[in-house]
Amino acid sequence: MADFKEATTVKRADSGRYDVDIDGSWSVGDVPNGGYLLALILKAVTTESPHPHPLSTSAHFVAPPSGGPATIHTEILRSGKTTATLRATLVQDDVSRVEALITTSTLDREADVEWAGPNPEPVAPVDECIPAVVDLPDGTHVGLLEHVDLRLDPQTLGWFSGRPAGQLSMRGHVRLADGTQPDPLVLALAVDSLPPTVFGLGRLGWAPTVELSVLTRSLPAPGWLTVHLRGRLVRDGWFDEEAEVYDADGALVAQSRQLARVRVG
Amino acid sequence: MADFKEATTVKRADSGRYDVDIDGSWSVGDVPNGGYLLALILKAVTTESPHPHPLSTSAHFVAPPSGGPATIHTEILRSGKTTATLRATLVQDDVSRVEALITTSTLDREADVEWAGPNPEPVAPVDECIPAVVDLPDGTHVGLLEHVDLRLDPQTLGWFSGRPAGQLSMRGHVRLADGTQPDPLVLALAVDSLPPTVFGLGRLGWAPTVELSVLTRSLPAPGWLTVHLRGRLVRDGWFDEEAEVYDADGALVAQSRQLARVRVG
Repeated sequence: MADFKEATTVKRADSGRYDVDIDGSWSVGDVPNGGYLLALILKAVTTESPHPHPLSTSAHFVAPPSGGPATIHTEILRSGKTTATLRATLVQDDVSRVEALITTSTLDREADVEWAGPNPEPVAPVDECIPAVVDLPDGTHVGLLEHVDLRLDPQTLGWFSGRPAGQLSMRGHVRLADGTQPDPLVLALAVDSLPPTVFGLGRLGWAPTVELSVLTRSLPAPGWLTVHLRGRLVRDGWFDEEAEVYDADGALVAQSRQLARVRVG
Repeated sequence: MADFKEATTVKRADSGRYDVDIDGSWSVGDVPNGGYLLALILKAVTTESPHPHPLSTSAHFVAPPSGGPATIHTEILRSGKTTATLRATLVQDDVSRVEALITTSTLDREADVEWAGPNPEPVAPVDECIPAVVDLPDGTHVGLLEHVDLRLDPQTLGWFSGRPAGQLSMRGHVRLADGTQPDPLVLALAVDSLPPTVFGLGRLGWAPTVELSVLTRSLPAPGWLTVHLRGRLVRDGWFDEEAEVYDADGALVAQSRQLARVRVG
């Protein structure tokens, strides 16, 4: 089984172009996970960028790719002292699959927190959480979860046994099964590794992400990542999902928001 | 004085290219407001797009433009039955100023809310709010506020008289001074029209936005828009700012998040 480093290997071809091999086993059903694709794109982008860390990443999922060869085209739009801005496009079979804009910078793990708002409600400790299963009640195989060790808070897991909590909420702990310690690429994966929050309303099934943005707020400490997902509104077939990710030291290391589709009816 | 429609006029040149005239009076200090630039870009994008409404908009602010002629390059990356994805670049003097990705769709004002989370704390009624002044304590002239009628909740206005509330929070009501009723372009303006939340920590001064993303959740009703801003973390010179915008009927019509720079020290 390919580990995270193998699955996110990029090979620089010519100016700004990176050849990649999308590992189809990092998937939900037949579709490679959005967080995994984002990690792959960020590998190319941080290789190309004069600054080493993704500070703000915005991705629009144009068309689902499949496992196999693909190309990431990167372009530095501006390079400054504090930040650089890059565009990246994941192309497969001459079709744009994911479009992204990334502002990179140099993050300092030692920087002080000047102000922080209140923490969200706590997540049950790892040993009281339930390991996620790789096969969902509707038969979907989540190959992603053979690579990602995900433990879900029992309070947000009622949907699995037919008793959804009635909340747009999902909480758990995440680490890579291969022992890779968290970094900004793993954070991009972590924000999109839990089941969609609409499962909490009993709305199981495919919930394709249209857009996902991630802010990297610090370099994470080694160990488990704790992920809080919540959403604000399900309307007209769309729902939002916000993630806060904390590292093993309790520092807020990433925030994300995505808009995804929920099957109507 | 140019009204909103004039200030967001776009002229289609050739395939996907729009000539615009950035109105330098929609500015904070010398720099055109990010929400205004986004509205201008969305005018071009929704003209080009097969779907009429911006559903999800992600913008990275690459370099500040100034008032005067500019060009918006748009490209349809994919056009589907439910959504289309477009790229847009605002170029001035051959330099990319704002890069954006937009997923468009057709929003239905009549669509039912399937689920909604709790509302944030209420904003003081319009007649108990304080009209924003166009000149800030540090001398910055906010020309934007000659176009945008902004009323701020006194509870989030302590910074103006040297008594900041010590919270990353700002609340108020917004409408266009020229009587233009809200639409998705006005929503993009509204999310970026209030003073930066870091003012609530007494950190006055220029707080340039690096990235701003907006979700349009519904078509707004006529009347005032109510805007709640809050942030989660100030760290390493960066702060996040999340907006929720409600229309006069109390419907959540937009959500946004931005990452901005705060002067260190």
